[in-house]
Amino acid sequence: MRKGRKAEGGSLSGRTARRRVLRVTLASDGRPGGSEPRADFLAGEEPLGIRVDGAALTMTMRTPGDDLELAAGFLVSEAVIRSPADIAEIKLCDGTACGHADQNGAGHNEMGNIADVTLAPGVAVTPGARRSFLTTSACGLCGKTSIEDICVLPHASLAADTARFAPDMLVALPDRLRDAQRVFSRTGGLHAAGLFTADGELITVREDVGRHNAVDKVVGWALLGDRLPLAGCVLLVSGRASFELVQKAILAGIPLLAAVSAPSSLAVDLAGQADLTLVGFLRGPSMNVYTGAHRLSA
Amino acid sequence: MRKGRKAEGGSLSGRTARRRVLRVTLASDGRPGGSEPRADFLAGEEPLGIRVDGAALTMTMRTPGDDLELAAGFLVSEAVIRSPADIAEIKLCDGTACGHADQNGAGHNEMGNIADVTLAPGVAVTPGARRSFLTTSACGLCGKTSIEDICVLPHASLAADTARFAPDMLVALPDRLRDAQRVFSRTGGLHAAGLFTADGELITVREDVGRHNAVDKVVGWALLGDRLPLAGCVLLVSGRASFELVQKAILAGIPLLAAVSAPSSLAVDLAGQADLTLVGFLRGPSMNVYTGAHRLSA
Repeated sequence: MRKGRKAEGGSLSGRTARRRVLRVTLASDGRPGGSEPRADFLAGEEPLGIRVDGAALTMTMRTPGDDLELAAGFLVSEAVIRSPADIAEIKLCDGTACGHADQNGAGHNEMGNIADVTLAPGVAVTPGARRSFLTTSACGLCGKTSIEDICVLPHASLAADTARFAPDMLVALPDRLRDAQRVFSRTGGLHAAGLFTADGELITVREDVGRHNAVDKVVGWALLGDRLPLAGCVLLVSGRASFELVQKAILAGIPLLAAVSAPSSLAVDLAGQADLTLVGFLRGPSMNVYTGAHRLSA
Repeated sequence: MRKGRKAEGGSLSGRTARRRVLRVTLASDGRPGGSEPRADFLAGEEPLGIRVDGAALTMTMRTPGDDLELAAGFLVSEAVIRSPADIAEIKLCDGTACGHADQNGAGHNEMGNIADVTLAPGVAVTPGARRSFLTTSACGLCGKTSIEDICVLPHASLAADTARFAPDMLVALPDRLRDAQRVFSRTGGLHAAGLFTADGELITVREDVGRHNAVDKVVGWALLGDRLPLAGCVLLVSGRASFELVQKAILAGIPLLAAVSAPSSLAVDLAGQADLTLVGFLRGPSMNVYTGAHRLSA
């Protein structure tokens, strides 16, 4: 796998943006109080196009940064790739190199809002995988079979992962995730996904305006470093646990997904099918264990 | 506009789902405490396909309920339709009526997970609108022109809306929204969008696992009741304010969008262009006014 020049790290440019804001505060008696203009740091949000083998695959609104990880993780989470060897090349497109020009005839600027992926020989985006990003033929989405129809890898199971996790380790994770969020304290507007060892040590953390993107960035980081599957690890997300986040955890081989807030019903159902341990409302000294409680050590 | 039999109201079935959960709580000294199984209500999450003029348009994961409003609001937010007259018929598909059968040859069950929309003569999904839901030709997403390229209605402006809003009215809205959330107290897992008059009276509230869906449901409710544009109204969302939520507010003609949490940079930029008043961090006695502060009365 070749990685483009911009593959590693990248600047913090675009991750936050400074804007003027009028801070309005009422007086203590509820009557009009003061207002003062000030500068505020916001979470950056820009579109990222993901192109595979020359064809546009999807577009996502994301916080700039870790874009190659985001693209790689997205492809893992859609079951297109499983290992770094499945990628021949991954780079951020700076326009000129991609042979495109804007309507004024000039090349694109260097903001790099396209992740350009070339798959290895024999690897392709299958129609089944494409179903997730393209508009879906509506028939087949109904009723009982909905999970099977929309899940890109319905028969995956984490049953072979024998890792055990201590509840007192888990309750310590939200504070560790918050401490690790470099951007959060400045914007207050970013979701975070943190990957931890079974002992609760932070492995890595990623942030984004989108919950799914933060997880894709973590998974992509793991893929590009050839660390998949993430056996024995814990993934903690700062918000809710949806069906799609459960799917991403399963495809990355993570046996325990924890969320600070609530899971959805479909998230619980899919977690149960795949023997993922799903923890919700991980706050203070307690948590709700929805599935896979056998992985919690006494 | 004809509405299918299931158009109005609909049952609460599917909005919440009961699941077993193991509640784990550490002892006060941080050592292993107790755990007890109990029932928990979760936010329902199921796919909804939206079909327009017989062709699948998009699929979204949503909390069941108000599905026709969701489909109608989505089409408003993508600038496909503007008034109820643009819809010839809108209904939930129960399989048999749509002429589909599952792999066992039987008709789909009645879960109604497809919203089937027939546009009025002369109304169509334009290529420009389709760009938002289909995979995007990546070229044209870069750099300075990103807002113009991804915004479905870049030149809309709310400058003609002369409504004024009092800060002490605005700070009271989050509590009113929480009070109005019928489902929230049971699941803790739903985003809410509330529509208020300029005097702070609640007009309607909708909830969903997805922030965007909650807003689409409000906008669709307004469209189906021929209440668009929502001049002089306030839209309050329970989470963050993203680019897409700002776009939805603008297309619905709402002059003030307020969020309990942070906006993104692109949200602020688009709001500024369209003269939308954008309020963030609406909590306690204060708020941040990012754009359109001229609409706040002293």
